[in-house]
Amino acid sequence: MDNLTIALDAMSGDFGPRVVVPAAIQALNNYPTLSIFLVGCLTEINLFLPKENSKLITQYQQEGRLMLMESTSVIANDMKPSYAIRHSQGSSMRIALELVKDNKAQACVSAGNTGALMGLSKLLLHSLTGIDRPALVAIVPALNNQNTVVLDLGANAECDSDMLVQFAIMGEILAKTVLNIEYPRVALLNIGEEDIKGLDKIRAASAILKSNNQINYIGYLEGNELLTGKTDVLVCDGFVGNVTLKTVEGLIKIFMSSFKLSLGHHSLLLKLLSKWLQRKIAKNFGYLDPGRYNGACLLGLRSIVIKSHGSANQKSFYAAIEQAILAIQTNIPEKIAASLSSALPKSE
Amino acid sequence: MDNLTIALDAMSGDFGPRVVVPAAIQALNNYPTLSIFLVGCLTEINLFLPKENSKLITQYQQEGRLMLMESTSVIANDMKPSYAIRHSQGSSMRIALELVKDNKAQACVSAGNTGALMGLSKLLLHSLTGIDRPALVAIVPALNNQNTVVLDLGANAECDSDMLVQFAIMGEILAKTVLNIEYPRVALLNIGEEDIKGLDKIRAASAILKSNNQINYIGYLEGNELLTGKTDVLVCDGFVGNVTLKTVEGLIKIFMSSFKLSLGHHSLLLKLLSKWLQRKIAKNFGYLDPGRYNGACLLGLRSIVIKSHGSANQKSFYAAIEQAILAIQTNIPEKIAASLSSALPKSE
Repeated sequence: MDNLTIALDAMSGDFGPRVVVPAAIQALNNYPTLSIFLVGCLTEINLFLPKENSKLITQYQQEGRLMLMESTSVIANDMKPSYAIRHSQGSSMRIALELVKDNKAQACVSAGNTGALMGLSKLLLHSLTGIDRPALVAIVPALNNQNTVVLDLGANAECDSDMLVQFAIMGEILAKTVLNIEYPRVALLNIGEEDIKGLDKIRAASAILKSNNQINYIGYLEGNELLTGKTDVLVCDGFVGNVTLKTVEGLIKIFMSSFKLSLGHHSLLLKLLSKWLQRKIAKNFGYLDPGRYNGACLLGLRSIVIKSHGSANQKSFYAAIEQAILAIQTNIPEKIAASLSSALPKSE
Repeated sequence: MDNLTIALDAMSGDFGPRVVVPAAIQALNNYPTLSIFLVGCLTEINLFLPKENSKLITQYQQEGRLMLMESTSVIANDMKPSYAIRHSQGSSMRIALELVKDNKAQACVSAGNTGALMGLSKLLLHSLTGIDRPALVAIVPALNNQNTVVLDLGANAECDSDMLVQFAIMGEILAKTVLNIEYPRVALLNIGEEDIKGLDKIRAASAILKSNNQINYIGYLEGNELLTGKTDVLVCDGFVGNVTLKTVEGLIKIFMSSFKLSLGHHSLLLKLLSKWLQRKIAKNFGYLDPGRYNGACLLGLRSIVIKSHGSANQKSFYAAIEQAILAIQTNIPEKIAASLSSALPKSE
């Protein structure tokens, strides 16, 4: 396996280095060819480097696998993206992205402000030709061991029909190259299956996709079909995608926890039964555990940027690092770029 | 209890009289003061009047509790609302609404084309003063035996900030009068909790709600908080509301069925265990069963119109009839009208 280098915005997310630093060490332990830049306030980063592994960490640093980069500011979550970008000089997010821009790292992972990450990524790393705005994409598990590529998950709260078409095309290429599906089914998320339903922009995108014979476009799907595996690619605007995926996550959390509570622990038999059940539930529904598929790729850039949930814990942030590794190994931006020119509608 | 009279669009939904007629008889059996108009193709309606109860049905007809009204057309689900309304003369949906308009019935229930039902209801029954567009509302069960008033669920795919504010005010009055909450918490569904997040129309609605000191406005909530009971009223546009609620319904269906399948029936012990579990699941999560809360009220009209799921089965359509009964008994339109004038922002 070739060498992998990833830049982590260590100050991002609700917990900053408290989560990012141990996840980074975990990744270094598990991936022998991985190198990591940790970008942030070095005092804080050093605080969260696990003491019990200090020998190992020194070794990683001596081998050049763990590199610490000082940043002087953090982009807050409640900053307006335009303001954040104007004042991004020296911030952990910007320095991590610059490492990718300067070819020192192959991917950047951040749990920070989505709008700022999107704007700075476009500014520093540029979109692919033909893509107006990159989209956040995740591969979401569905019934019967299937997977669905879902985008946009929140990079673009407002989208027009051209953007939806571009998302469909990028999602289709992703399903081909990462999920190895020869002719991926592509659907638009809508509030009815009939042609007349929904918003103007969705109907317009539908007409364009119908006329594109390179895309296996299957029409509209509704919310209740999200996890059924009826499509390989599901396209929606970033507002709807974000609300929908968060709704799924919330419901699974409620389900997991209320089942646990309701069983209680009244007797030894019930205790054993409850344990057995929880294993069963974890086996059956663990695949829907949001932590397992944390890390949405900012698709449509010339380089790899992974957005982690702001609320990610160590396990989830580790999953986002693994998403970055997968994206590097499958060479997503190059594959999208190569297929894009033939798939995009020709402008006159 | 006073007499109740409801008009049912018997030709509506995916199954028409096959579902509506038996649900109507079930309601007549259970509510002794209820009268029902069944509007549709009489040949078809007669076909689905349960044969084994023919004596009872004749009795209901003689007592004037079951009245059959012939219609000559059906508004199809894939008809454009504007076209459907222009050609609605003699349709089952229009005749059912006209019975309400003429004070022969107190409420109408239809599982038909949402856009057409909305348009015809506005045309025939009129909106309350100050309400631009009625909204589909449902009371959705949440954690800890709480309930959340959610609107709009699909009557208005596109909304501006004024409509969102009107939805918030109507939802608040509903929570007060039906859920008996003195100061209902009101939230807007958004993709982040920070002020800067989301769409312009949501931020504008938020500013208006903040300045309205009659409303206990608590800010933004995200998708993962939908069923947690963190708010009493949750407001969103009809597109997002429809996708979100359908996502919840789909997920619960997947959960119920895949649990059943995965347990299998390998031995007597497992068989017994599986039955016990399914009872447990039904008890814990049955409250989320979409069929149980079928029937969304078209809030903001001068009369009561209930929209049932198009795919409703008998049990679900019966639930929609019960929603109509509840709306009549709690006198929703009058209560909304009475509180509306003081709650709406004053226009200069």
